[in-house]
Amino acid sequence: MNHKLRVKRLQESLGARKLGALLVTHLPDIRYLSGFTGSAGALLVTDSRAVFFTDGRYTEQARAQVQGVRIVISPKPPLTAAAEWCNSNLKSRSSSRRSVGFDADHLTVSQHSRLRQVITSSFRLVQAPALVAGMRMMKDSEEIELIRAAVMLGASLFDTALQAIRPGVKETDVAAEMEHAARRAGAEEMSFSTIIASGTRSALPHGRATQARIPSSGFVVCDFGVILAGYCSDMTRTVHVGRPTAEARSIYNAVLEAQEVAVQAVRAGVGVSDVDGSARNLLKSKGLAKYFSHSTGHGVGLEIHEAPRIARGAPDILEPGMVITIEPGIYIAGKCGVRIEDMVVVTERGCDVLTPTTKELIAV
Amino acid sequence: MNHKLRVKRLQESLGARKLGALLVTHLPDIRYLSGFTGSAGALLVTDSRAVFFTDGRYTEQARAQVQGVRIVISPKPPLTAAAEWCNSNLKSRSSSRRSVGFDADHLTVSQHSRLRQVITSSFRLVQAPALVAGMRMMKDSEEIELIRAAVMLGASLFDTALQAIRPGVKETDVAAEMEHAARRAGAEEMSFSTIIASGTRSALPHGRATQARIPSSGFVVCDFGVILAGYCSDMTRTVHVGRPTAEARSIYNAVLEAQEVAVQAVRAGVGVSDVDGSARNLLKSKGLAKYFSHSTGHGVGLEIHEAPRIARGAPDILEPGMVITIEPGIYIAGKCGVRIEDMVVVTERGCDVLTPTTKELIAV
Repeated sequence: MNHKLRVKRLQESLGARKLGALLVTHLPDIRYLSGFTGSAGALLVTDSRAVFFTDGRYTEQARAQVQGVRIVISPKPPLTAAAEWCNSNLKSRSSSRRSVGFDADHLTVSQHSRLRQVITSSFRLVQAPALVAGMRMMKDSEEIELIRAAVMLGASLFDTALQAIRPGVKETDVAAEMEHAARRAGAEEMSFSTIIASGTRSALPHGRATQARIPSSGFVVCDFGVILAGYCSDMTRTVHVGRPTAEARSIYNAVLEAQEVAVQAVRAGVGVSDVDGSARNLLKSKGLAKYFSHSTGHGVGLEIHEAPRIARGAPDILEPGMVITIEPGIYIAGKCGVRIEDMVVVTERGCDVLTPTTKELIAV
Repeated sequence: MNHKLRVKRLQESLGARKLGALLVTHLPDIRYLSGFTGSAGALLVTDSRAVFFTDGRYTEQARAQVQGVRIVISPKPPLTAAAEWCNSNLKSRSSSRRSVGFDADHLTVSQHSRLRQVITSSFRLVQAPALVAGMRMMKDSEEIELIRAAVMLGASLFDTALQAIRPGVKETDVAAEMEHAARRAGAEEMSFSTIIASGTRSALPHGRATQARIPSSGFVVCDFGVILAGYCSDMTRTVHVGRPTAEARSIYNAVLEAQEVAVQAVRAGVGVSDVDGSARNLLKSKGLAKYFSHSTGHGVGLEIHEAPRIARGAPDILEPGMVITIEPGIYIAGKCGVRIEDMVVVTERGCDVLTPTTKELIAV
């Protein structure tokens, strides 16, 4: 990854925002800019400098991972160390340069108070726009290849799931086989708690695998992903145990149509709310929209959920290089649920579907 | 779990803090008070009422899990719904009751701003002390049994690790076998990314398993835990591949002595900083204190890291029912590291060591 170039692009954007410095506190943002993968750190970026603060646990790791950015190891919390560095190093600047921007979405009220206490009154702490999140939305070709590799590894786990899903088997045992296969194939970890939601549990949009046993008939929602080289995958397939009824088929096909129409709607220049609307309208035409209780998708990258949200009323416009999920679902309480999810890369003319897996209804 | 009693105890503490209501935003706190295990929600507690806010994805789950607390499903973000509920329901109260406390450690500056925008000016938003974190520090007998079960499951994975650790095997493959065994035994997930740090990587205190292959000789730090019924386990053992040198033995024994002296120091009424000091002084007497780059331990419960921190200068005094780790380590950059970690329950007279596993140096 060209971390240096990313830092440079960020530095170039500070002037227009009248920021003398930006304090980056969200760990995935820090990783994106510096390469650091640890769990404690703060990155301060000025127009000409970038300094990374962490503690003694990460001395070795920071030296190994962080390139092109100065490293400060401090016994104090990274934010305190960063504030003190500002006090000592950003003194003789013009007044606009004394604004230190912070990320209000990733700074707690406590951290903000402490920062205020440490940094001298010659600095103004200001809520900065989400500059790094904005950069991260558009993936470069190297990132897309890493995401593609994560998606392919993730997709291979669906075969494992198909082998494991049988009546009487615990949901957690299906998850166990998938997670074991993921690790053996080199995944760093799962990108979220594996969802294996069988029978009436399929009506839970976030039905993490439990000790429940798969019933002899009904849907099983399988929603899972891996992290490989830092990048996440995310996919959902819903299979049916036993022979699906006509009603089950019709529910499945409605979700499939909604998913396909939303994938077809994806193209640079289209609003995310229009993509969401296309899935929602399809389900509406079948009287099923009220069972679609979440948004259509989200960005994926270093985080499993990142910008943009593909949701009603969301303001973003799709741009080439965005990697998003398309995952409508319907959930009928006490009865059943179906969700189908692919990851796609936005292009000028449409999108590339990354997820290679069939969406035909599989009965096991 | 007696969630109702917990809510009642919290309600009883609000008056003395002059809080008309407390807004609970930290998900493990919400789980502790209500039983809800989902990923989005806010809990508002007044002296006589408790209302839980979540979104449509969690309608079913909230109804199944949350007892004794009113549930509000809203299309708006839970915090917004909670603020609007205050506006409509807490009007005719005396002035002290118009203070709404929030948890500054678990509310972002953005969330705080939005809360301010929604809640009317008749309410004062005030930083509340960490009331729920304080309650959670002392585990009741039911919690201790759940933690004990998690610790026993976690400890069984060390046998799996001993079978898997061999020269040439990838660290991630050791983790894969442990995680698979954990799932098969019913764990919901690992409590953190499994650390398998072999050879010179053992000098990384947070050396998550990588694709590195275990060398023919040297230490392997194994730090891992599971979540079972919501409660976390955490343990570390360091094994040696091949015959340890006299120096390796001496390093190992120093850490073992430090760990044992710190366990012996644990007792209700003792300051956490004294427990930390006992381990640190032991290592100091051997000239190794400079290699002990982290604190001695932390609380464990619904979260893998919770109060109290067992650290230099930390203010807490141990009380019966606290469950903490004791985990000194030494890390010699480029060379090796050793850490040994048990979980213990604080008692009036000392502590019960929960971790059943031998601490003798095992050569594999």
